[in-house]
Order: sequence, then C-alpha cells, then structure tokens
Amino acid sequence: MNRIAVRAAIHVAAVFALYLSAAMLIPAAVDLYFGHDDWRVFAFSALFMGGLAMAVALATQGRAPPVTTRFAFLLVNLLWVTMAIAGAVPLAASSVGISIADAIFESVSAITTTGSTVLVGLDTMPPGLLLWRSILQWFGGLGVIALGLFVLPFLNVGGVSYFKIESSDIEDRPFERFSTYAVSFLAIYAGLTLACAISYAMAGMTGFDALNHSMTTLATGGFSTHDASLGFYVDKPAVLWVGTLFMFIGGLPFSILILFLVRGRLDALGDPQMRVFAGYCIVFIVGVAIYLRVNADMPFLDAFTHSAFNFVSIITTCGYASADYLQWGPFAVACFFVATFLGGCSGSTAGGIKAYRFLILFELMSNGLRRLVYPHTVLPVRYGDRTVDPDMQRAVVLFISSFFVIWAIGTILLAATGLDLMTAMSSVLTALTNVGPGLGDIVGPSGNFSTLPDAAKWLLPIWMLLGRLEILAVLVIFTPTFWAR
Amino acid sequence: MNRIAVRAAIHVAAVFALYLSAAMLIPAAVDLYFGHDDWRVFAFSALFMGGLAMAVALATQGRAPPVTTRFAFLLVNLLWVTMAIAGAVPLAASSVGISIADAIFESVSAITTTGSTVLVGLDTMPPGLLLWRSILQWFGGLGVIALGLFVLPFLNVGGVSYFKIESSDIEDRPFERFSTYAVSFLAIYAGLTLACAISYAMAGMTGFDALNHSMTTLATGGFSTHDASLGFYVDKPAVLWVGTLFMFIGGLPFSILILFLVRGRLDALGDPQMRVFAGYCIVFIVGVAIYLRVNADMPFLDAFTHSAFNFVSIITTCGYASADYLQWGPFAVACFFVATFLGGCSGSTAGGIKAYRFLILFELMSNGLRRLVYPHTVLPVRYGDRTVDPDMQRAVVLFISSFFVIWAIGTILLAATGLDLMTAMSSVLTALTNVGPGLGDIVGPSGNFSTLPDAAKWLLPIWMLLGRLEILAVLVIFTPTFWAR
Repeated sequence: MNRIAVRAAIHVAAVFALYLSAAMLIPAAVDLYFGHDDWRVFAFSALFMGGLAMAVALATQGRAPPVTTRFAFLLVNLLWVTMAIAGAVPLAASSVGISIADAIFESVSAITTTGSTVLVGLDTMPPGLLLWRSILQWFGGLGVIALGLFVLPFLNVGGVSYFKIESSDIEDRPFERFSTYAVSFLAIYAGLTLACAISYAMAGMTGFDALNHSMTTLATGGFSTHDASLGFYVDKPAVLWVGTLFMFIGGLPFSILILFLVRGRLDALGDPQMRVFAGYCIVFIVGVAIYLRVNADMPFLDAFTHSAFNFVSIITTCGYASADYLQWGPFAVACFFVATFLGGCSGSTAGGIKAYRFLILFELMSNGLRRLVYPHTVLPVRYGDRTVDPDMQRAVVLFISSFFVIWAIGTILLAATGLDLMTAMSSVLTALTNVGPGLGDIVGPSGNFSTLPDAAKWLLPIWMLLGRLEILAVLVIFTPTFWAR
Repeated sequence: MNRIAVRAAIHVAAVFALYLSAAMLIPAAVDLYFGHDDWRVFAFSALFMGGLAMAVALATQGRAPPVTTRFAFLLVNLLWVTMAIAGAVPLAASSVGISIADAIFESVSAITTTGSTVLVGLDTMPPGLLLWRSILQWFGGLGVIALGLFVLPFLNVGGVSYFKIESSDIEDRPFERFSTYAVSFLAIYAGLTLACAISYAMAGMTGFDALNHSMTTLATGGFSTHDASLGFYVDKPAVLWVGTLFMFIGGLPFSILILFLVRGRLDALGDPQMRVFAGYCIVFIVGVAIYLRVNADMPFLDAFTHSAFNFVSIITTCGYASADYLQWGPFAVACFFVATFLGGCSGSTAGGIKAYRFLILFELMSNGLRRLVYPHTVLPVRYGDRTVDPDMQRAVVLFISSFFVIWAIGTILLAATGLDLMTAMSSVLTALTNVGPGLGDIVGPSGNFSTLPDAAKWLLPIWMLLGRLEILAVLVIFTPTFWAR
C-alpha cells in the first residue's frame, strides 16, 4: 500500500461524502414542508459535512493511483465508513436527542441494510429524520448491489478472489457497454422502488409511509416509520403481501433482474441459486403456516400471510415484523433462528450466508459422500450447467467456517457486556447477516436495541460491516500484508 | 455392496456382541458381591444376548469378503449400533424401571462417550447398573481410539478419505508390527485408567467411585455415580484436579501418547494440534477464573479450580460438572457455549470439531486474506512441518460447514418436539459434539435429560452417533451409491 493509493481513496470517499451532504437537503426540504424545525439540523449538517468533504477532496487532489485490488479494498471499506459517519451527523444533531453511540449504530444499521434500530417513538419523530433513515438504507442497498456488480468482478482480475461467483453472472453474460449496464441497474432499482411505493399506497399506506417503506423494502433494510414495524398495518393484509413480493424481489440477483426486465430473457430465471432461495422460502413459509393452523388454531389465510411476510423478511435479511413471532411456539422460533443464517441471492441487497453457498455446500457434501465409497473418482461440482473450480469451492466452505468463528467471537464479546447468552448470540448473528431483529425480549421483533449497553452498541456495527462486506474484505484491511509496501 | 460383505459385517458384529455379553458378567458379579438382586438381570441379559449373538454368528459364518472401504463403513456403523442395543438390554431389564427409549438413550450416550443421562437417583442405584454404564463408556472410548488408530487409516488406502489427517500421525511414524502397536495401545489405555483410579482414591474417593470415574474420565465420557456429578466431591479439590489432569490426557492424541510413553520420544509432544488444544483450554480457564474472581468475588484458587475442571470437562467433551456454571454470569455461559464446539485432538476419545481442524481453518483464513492482496501467490497450508494437501483442506472446511447444517436441522426437529430454542439448540449441539451437558434448566449441568419428551430421546442418540463417527461416515450409509452393486 503506498501513499498515493491512500490519498486517492480518501479523495474518492470525500467526493462521495459531498454527494451524501447534498442528499441531506431532501430531508431538510421535507421538514420545512411539514413545518418542522429540524430542517435546520439537516441544512446545517449538509453545510458542515459538505464543507468538510470539499476541503478534504481539495486537499487530496492529485494523480490517479494504479488500480490494484488493495486500492479497491481500501476504497470499499473507506466508502462504508464515510457513509456511516456522514449518515450519523444529522442524527446526532437532531432535536430528538440521540447519543453519538446511538447515531453511529443507527447509521451503520441503515447503510448495511441491517435495520436494527435504537430509536423509540418512531411514530412521532420528525419526518425529515425518518426519511433520512430510509434514504441511507436505500443508498446502502444501492451500494451493495453496485459492489456485487461493478467492484467485486474487478477484484477478480488477474486471480481468484473470494467474490468470484458473486460476479460470475456478469462474466458469463457481459454487457457491451458498462454505462448501459449502470443505467439499466439504476433505472431498475429506482423503478422497482417506485412500483413498490405505488403498490403500498394502493394497498392502504399513507403517501409518506409508502415512500419510506418502498425504499427500505427494496434495500431489504427493514427500517420502518412505526415502532410496531409493519405490524402497524396488520389489518391490511394487502400491505403485507406487497411487502412480501418486493422483499422477495430485493433478494434476487440484480444481474438476472436486468437480463429479465431489460432484455426479456426468460431463461435467466432458471438461475440455480434463485431456485434454492425460493425453495427454502417456501419450505419455511408452508411448514410454519401449517404449524400455526394446527397448533395455534389460526385461520389458514392469516397464518399463511404472516408466515410468508415474516419468513421472507428474515430470509431476505430485510427484518420487518408483522407480529411478535417469538410467541408462535418453539418450532416456529427455531425456524426463525435457522432462517436468520440463510440469506438471499448473490448480487442482491440481501445478506446472510446466501443461497449459492448452500447450493455449492450440498454439492460438496454429496460429492464427499460419493468419494468415501469410490475414493478414486473425481467428480465435478456443478452450479447449474457450469463447473465450480476448486478455488471457489474452497472459498465457499471457508466463508461458512469463518462465519461461525466470527459469530462465536462476537457472542463472547457481547456476553462480556452483560447480555444474556440468547441476546448476545442472536444480536451478533442478526448483525452479521444484516437481518435486523434477533431473539429474546431485548433484540427480538417486539423489542428494541435502545436498551443495550453502550459497549454492545459500539460492537454490533462492526459485525454489521463484517457481514455486509463478506467478512474477508474487512479483515484484509487489518493484516500486515495489506499495508506492506 | 454385495451380500457377502453384509453377511460378513453382521458376523463380526455378532462376535463382538458375544464379547459384550461376557462383559455383562462383571456387573452381575458386583451386584452379587454387594448382595443386590439385579445380578439376575445381568446374568440373564448375558445369557440372552450371548445366545442370540452366538446364533447370528453361526448363521452368518462363511468366507471373508474382499476388504473394501464400503465394508469398513458398514462394519463401523454396525458395531456401534450393536453396542447400543446390547448395552441397552440390561438397562431396560433392570429393577430400576427404565423405559426402552431411556435405555437406548443411556446406552448410546455411553458408547459415544457423550455422557448425557436420563437416570435420576444415581446415588442409590444398584452398583452393577452404575458399573455397566461406566464399562460401556470405557468400551466406547476404546472403540473410538481404535477407530482413529486402526480403522480410519485403512479407509485411506488407495484414496483420500475424510479421515486422512486422523491417521497422519501414524503414517508418519509407522510401527514395525501392528500387534505391538495394539498391545501398547491397550496397555496404555488400561494403565492410564488404573493410574486415574488410584489417584482418585488417594484424593478421597471411595474405591467404587474411583473405579467408575476413572473409566469415564479416560473415555472423556462423563457418566458419574452421583446426580451431582463431581459436584459431589466439591469439598475435595484434589479430586477435581485429578479429574482435570486425566480428562486432559484423554483429549490428547493416543498415537502421541504411545510414542511418548512407550518410546520415550519427547519430540512427539511438539505436535501442533496439542499446542492449539492446550492453548484454547488455557485461554478459557484463565479468562473465566479472573472473571469469577472479579465479578463473583470468589477466592482465586476456588475460581481457578472450578474454571479449570469445568472447561477441561467441556472442551475434552467429557461432560462432568463440579458446579452449576450457568449461574456464573453471561460471559461465563457464552464461553461454555463456545467451548462446546471445540473438542480435543484427533485420535483421542474427545469429540467436537477438534483442534487440528481449527489449526487448518486458521491457516486457510490467513492464506485467504493474503491471496486477496496477492492473488497470484500460491501458499502452502502448514500443519507443523508438514503441508496439508488440497483435498484435506477441503475436507476440514467441509466438515465444519456440514457440522453446522446438521446442527441446524437437529435444532428444528428438537424444537418440533416442543422444547424451547435454547434447550433444543444446546441439546443437539452437546449430542453432536459428544459433550454431555447443554444449556438451560433441563439439559444444563444441574438438569437431567429425563424430563425430555420421548421424541427428543429418540432423536438425540442419532446426533450422538453422527458426531461420534464424524458425520460423513454415518451419512454415507444412507446414500444410494453405498448400496449400489
């Protein structure tokens, strides 16, 4: 790592912060429109952050560095940290009285599309602040898809990276021009958000709610404008079904969505990870719906609606809740616990372990079993009609193994802050998978992260960032190799 | 798989059952000596099982099959199932009134050296029955070391098996004669058990207790003759330290113990997995001892004694408890939860993920991070002064990934029997790692598995066997490939 690269990365992050500062004028305008005094907070934050960003951007101007994988990793980490800090400034400055720890937690939870919140009394909060949370989450979703589509493939150049399969959809179907692709991507992300907002409004949401929730639905983020999350609309099942549909879409690979929506390529929908993702969604939804019908004596349609909404919410790592599903009995709770690990597809806004990794893991297990019987056979690992190379196979199982180690370390640290095991274990898990709600009274769907000790509020954002940037892309920054000249 | 192989495997299992039946005469003699009527139960069980085994052995006589990996897998599974059933017979027939489900659970818990018990009132049970449980566990420990020393290496012949590293200690240092090796092994296992029994007696145990606990200590099994486990001897710290020492020895690789004790090879103690195993034991022991001293205001020596005893017990997957450590506060509980995964060394009586897998996993993670920076470099994965081949690397991470999948499936199934998530999750985990106690009121160190629903009692032994035979060696039996001609 050389100085030119560090300077250039800071420069790009500063320019990015400038855009974010400009975005603060949107909540400022909304607060002004609704006659809320907090418009000043956003306007001043925009000026302050904008000025600072401008100064840093000017101070770090210079020639572009050679584009290396190290530069890319540094930049990605720096961009997410910049988003976290810039996002936190207006929160900490707002009239609501949010501590620094809370502001950072909320901001990181937003940009990593985790959706855990430390704010209580959302229903009466200034509209600008609510909108800012939603905008941050929407940007976070945009960022993680862009990462999957444009940055991670680049990290592959000249070698095997841990993200290779993340980009394989693109490698196989290269677009003629990068800009066409980028425009398609932005248009589809914005278009789907708009479609979601209109659907929410038609299903009975107010305009403001529809706008906020559409942004946090497509980003599979999970921030709501109500303390009760989408439980606020529990008497409007159409709202829940709109949410279910668009969260599911948010969990699909964006490259496939582009192929399908822009090119009309129906065959793209045969993507194997989509089948695995849809498969485990259906198994959990139907299993728990039947369980609720039989054991809780809930009408089947209600059971099905709530099961579908909450499982799609957890599996896509969105994190809305329509009900306190921890009251649905131990079988349902265990299903939600396991669903927290799963995640959506690669190149989506969803986090977690992700469908393609499970697909490759099961292929590996089944091959492993066959090789115990016939040790001499060499069997290819299939991913649809492609073969997964050995480096990729190793990367998948290495990710899963590392995931559990990182989870275990986090659990011990969170418990050291005084939290009981269930809260510690599930809050770290829900941070690492960017889901949002955990288990237990404090971090469960009917709880709130606000009562966590401050130490826990500083620790969890680290696990959110680890999860969002696929663990190794964060850890690499802390190795001596990375900083060697 | 052909008929000759199946018949031959059944024949070997029947001969083995004959030996087990003979072993039942030991508890019969003890009950007779103590004047307990249950001597009849053991005598009749010996006759019944012995007769049945003899009949099956005679009916399946014939020429030996070609020795294949499939034959070996079938035989290993069959031997463990035979031990489970033969072990359960006198339990189910005893005067204590043990149901079939309970007898099978107890027997499998014994032979897999798990040590979870469904029996309450151990302190007043017939001595023969207590001894039988200890003998079964001692045999189980013998079996799993023999598996690691003599059977698994054979499965390597002609190809890469998932156990390759389990046998690598032997491959590197071949003994001239198999029989010398087998005799050394038996002598050391029996000798250490005797040394342990004498130490226990000198530390203040009664002779009967010393005998029983020495067998279940060396096997890292964890069955006790008291409901309070070794908490019964809480006023005799010397007993706890004897236990700590011999459990730790039980978690060491037996091939290394043979080299050290028979050949006097001091260099063998430099085995890298032993350093990792000792390392994580020390970290947990010291960390929690300090935590107890500071937070619970326990005298340091007491804190150190109990921390050492219980962590070595959990990490070596023995499963004794000297206290209800779930009352030590959330940090300690989280440490015990994480310690449940760890395990001892390969080729020992300990279960769990095991030290050598963590060693290879960390090498892989560190290499993976270095390759993100320098994608072109090919780095060897080191295990001490050896290089781990790619197949082995994959096998290690595949095991860890499969472990978590099997754990998740078990958790959902156990929760479906009506158990709360913490009980379901931790009872499956403690079965899969062959530890013994889990978390929560029911399966925790101060609880008892007796109150579990029958469905749970039938499910958990499956996970114990999966854990004991390293998951894939059991799953392979259920693949169509295995039974193909």
